Amino acid sequence: MLRSLKNLKTAPIQRQLARSTLAYQPVRTLATAVGSGRIGTHANEKSFFPDEPQQPQVKTAIPGPSSKEIMQRLNQYQDTRSVFYIADFAKSKGNYIVDADGNALLDLFAQIASIPIGYNSPAFLALTSSPAFQSALANRPALGVNPTKDWVDAVEQAFMSVAPKGMSNVFTAMCGSCANENAFKAAFMYQAGKRRGDKEFTMEELQSCMKNQAPGSPDMSVLSFAQGFHGRLFGSLTTTGSKAIHKVDIPAFDWPKAPFPQRKYPLEDNVEHNQKVEQQCLEETERLIKTWKSPVAAVVIEPVQSEGGDNHASPDFFRKLQQICIKNDVLFIVDEVQTGVGATGTFWAHEAWNLPTPPDMVTFSKKFQAAGFYGHPKLRPAQPYRLYNTWMGDPVRAMQAAAIVREVKDKDLLQNVSRVGEYLQKELKEISRKYGKIQDVRGQGTFIAFDLPTAQDRDSLIGEMRKNGVNIGGCGDRAIRLRPMLTFQMKHADIFLDTLEKSIAKA
Amino acid sequence: MLRSLKNLKTAPIQRQLARSTLAYQPVRTLATAVGSGRIGTHANEKSFFPDEPQQPQVKTAIPGPSSKEIMQRLNQYQDTRSVFYIADFAKSKGNYIVDADGNALLDLFAQIASIPIGYNSPAFLALTSSPAFQSALANRPALGVNPTKDWVDAVEQAFMSVAPKGMSNVFTAMCGSCANENAFKAAFMYQAGKRRGDKEFTMEELQSCMKNQAPGSPDMSVLSFAQGFHGRLFGSLTTTGSKAIHKVDIPAFDWPKAPFPQRKYPLEDNVEHNQKVEQQCLEETERLIKTWKSPVAAVVIEPVQSEGGDNHASPDFFRKLQQICIKNDVLFIVDEVQTGVGATGTFWAHEAWNLPTPPDMVTFSKKFQAAGFYGHPKLRPAQPYRLYNTWMGDPVRAMQAAAIVREVKDKDLLQNVSRVGEYLQKELKEISRKYGKIQDVRGQGTFIAFDLPTAQDRDSLIGEMRKNGVNIGGCGDRAIRLRPMLTFQMKHADIFLDTLEKSIAKA
Repeated sequence: MLRSLKNLKTAPIQRQLARSTLAYQPVRTLATAVGSGRIGTHANEKSFFPDEPQQPQVKTAIPGPSSKEIMQRLNQYQDTRSVFYIADFAKSKGNYIVDADGNALLDLFAQIASIPIGYNSPAFLALTSSPAFQSALANRPALGVNPTKDWVDAVEQAFMSVAPKGMSNVFTAMCGSCANENAFKAAFMYQAGKRRGDKEFTMEELQSCMKNQAPGSPDMSVLSFAQGFHGRLFGSLTTTGSKAIHKVDIPAFDWPKAPFPQRKYPLEDNVEHNQKVEQQCLEETERLIKTWKSPVAAVVIEPVQSEGGDNHASPDFFRKLQQICIKNDVLFIVDEVQTGVGATGTFWAHEAWNLPTPPDMVTFSKKFQAAGFYGHPKLRPAQPYRLYNTWMGDPVRAMQAAAIVREVKDKDLLQNVSRVGEYLQKELKEISRKYGKIQDVRGQGTFIAFDLPTAQDRDSLIGEMRKNGVNIGGCGDRAIRLRPMLTFQMKHADIFLDTLEKSIAKA
Repeated sequence: MLRSLKNLKTAPIQRQLARSTLAYQPVRTLATAVGSGRIGTHANEKSFFPDEPQQPQVKTAIPGPSSKEIMQRLNQYQDTRSVFYIADFAKSKGNYIVDADGNALLDLFAQIASIPIGYNSPAFLALTSSPAFQSALANRPALGVNPTKDWVDAVEQAFMSVAPKGMSNVFTAMCGSCANENAFKAAFMYQAGKRRGDKEFTMEELQSCMKNQAPGSPDMSVLSFAQGFHGRLFGSLTTTGSKAIHKVDIPAFDWPKAPFPQRKYPLEDNVEHNQKVEQQCLEETERLIKTWKSPVAAVVIEPVQSEGGDNHASPDFFRKLQQICIKNDVLFIVDEVQTGVGATGTFWAHEAWNLPTPPDMVTFSKKFQAAGFYGHPKLRPAQPYRLYNTWMGDPVRAMQAAAIVREVKDKDLLQNVSRVGEYLQKELKEISRKYGKIQDVRGQGTFIAFDLPTAQDRDSLIGEMRKNGVNIGGCGDRAIRLRPMLTFQMKHADIFLDTLEKSIAKA
């Protein structure tokens, strides 16, 4: 861990830019140059975007001179050390991102897994000419006070039409972190309310909370899992455990972290071991719930630990975890901020678990453009104005969410994801057998990852892939995570796979 | 406090609706019916919105039958107990909000102080036909990874063109709570980094933070003020102290709260007393900074405590507070989420303090449509990815912020606010002398408040005003806060003032 942190020390922007710039390569049209033979085999596939680029094209180093110039200008006002390159979204289309230097990259990172239906989706562009959308933009409501007439339609079309089975309520928010934090607040109020029963707040509670003291500010906790990621604000960051650099120097609550199963791959060869580690994690989770120094109000977990390295567990693990929650009177919160909205092949990843009863809350953001959580009406606090803020969400983004739902249905995108995901996983396992460097291929739908032997190998492969016109991202210590859009097709998979084979040798 | 909380216990939606419904009054066009004689005296004033209603019009009880029907439908999915009525934003215009029943109210609450330049502002509507805006909407970037070419223009036009003097950096976020929480995080990292100097993180720090334990998760604090409001997420809610109902049952950090000056009015008759209470608060603040159980990394304060009752302090108080921060090596954060963007007569309320050196951070949201904080480049953490998240703000809302800045300049809206604010304050003081119920008129620009004798009197006046076609809001225990838009003119002030005089008698 320390080694990779060494690279993070501050440096003048010029040096940072120089370091992040990939060595310049002469102009090349890349798809034709790669030779593993998949490209072209799905030429008959009907394209979701007939006008997107046919293949990646890399003209300059990335970031190129125009990106660098804009980054320098932006760096006067904002920290640009994390910026890869400057996008030209006006020219980006479908599954391809075009940068300020005119390089067109096949994008399997998609703005950290948050582009749902392609760049410049006609479904999104059409919104701008709709009077209802224009009104939503020009009149940002305080939804808790004055929702507009159309809001209930947006709630039904965007959120309720795809609500997880058995979940009838939705609380809307602004981003993944605040979706999770509001879910935590709902859990705390629910547990405190249950203990209180029909009684009023005591004067001691009301006075002590104004001083941030118990009993008004109670010592309760949310249990999360090692390597989990739930956001970066103070409550959500406490439950996050993916990387030390996200947490160090920031005060945190004294809340527990349970171990998440570290499964061995391939799964079929490690059935017994994996069952055992899952069982151990469940036992430790229950032990923590029963013995932690403060009452555990809720458990929060991702269906796939994403930022933390794409760690999967079995449906059986999640079913048993829910049972532990029910048995111990702890709420079960599923964080679908990254897994939600189709990429695993079901609209919500937790659908694959076949739970006997719905989770208590399911949080969302990212690809849905809008954020919030689903829950049961029992989670409405007994008093109004407690789960509340000025905006309570954003109708503009909710109307986009409704457009996404329509596109997913109209274009049968879940079926597309399942089909392409299956192909990608099969081919990646083949590549893994061929090249030892690609390890532990794992995934659900197109939500796929694999490991490289070291962080350096991983970073080097990301760089080589970008030079070859394919944009991918990392996660965890040494994993590559694939986060294509729902519109990622077989022909794109072929370009990615051939480019990967070509890049492995060099990386 | 307990008394007002009794009303908050849960109740079926039907009863809630019935209770919040004002008694039905026959249709009336209200401006002509009020008789204090101001209406019409500013008839020659050039209107910012020639096509807005000329006067309020109330046709039904509020909420009326259409509002109630939509509220019932929405209540299946979302808690509607805080909803006053359903808006029809397509029909709202300028300073008037129209509801689902066709009632037109002169709006001095403006979506909890967050509408800047009128409903259906042509400046906002024009954006929707701009290709750059359409691209921003259809391609939501991860700004920390792939800002688009236009982003730097939006940063310059929206944020830097009105940056508080001496502040060259801006961190963009999603809402006021996360603006404040990111400012707190920046403060913690800055203070920890200063102590660390050139040293690397220790292994102990990196390992302990993953368990939410010191030294990696350090015991540091942010000092805030009693009655302050800084948001509702876990860190920001800890610094909030406006109402117990916002805080009770939610775990909080053990951070200190200093007293905020409780000034007596009228100011000119209480100079000595007010100086004395301000001095006492400053002394107690410094004592807390020096003796609190954890190091105080930053002080956060609102220029006017808004949610907490519109409590003002003198420029001298804020200058001395900054000096205390400087002397004790504590960062000075000014929370302008509600006061910013013009309503006090300057673009930022803290401009009125004439500070000798800029605050360390200034946070914003609400009327700016976009959220974030200004700061000094020294606050960039030594390592990247620490003040970071997926979206890092919203270009769509930043482009609206740029449009607001243009409107403020083109229409000289600060001058309008100053002129109308001065008139409102003068007339309100007159009304206060006439009717004892209106007490302690106070304000800067149109950011004005006054007290009623009790919470019940206040709530009753809000109800009576709404029946008479004017929408106002409360804050604190018994205050009315006026939060008109920047486009609120003399003729609107006349309608408000005459309606107030008419309503006081009945309330």
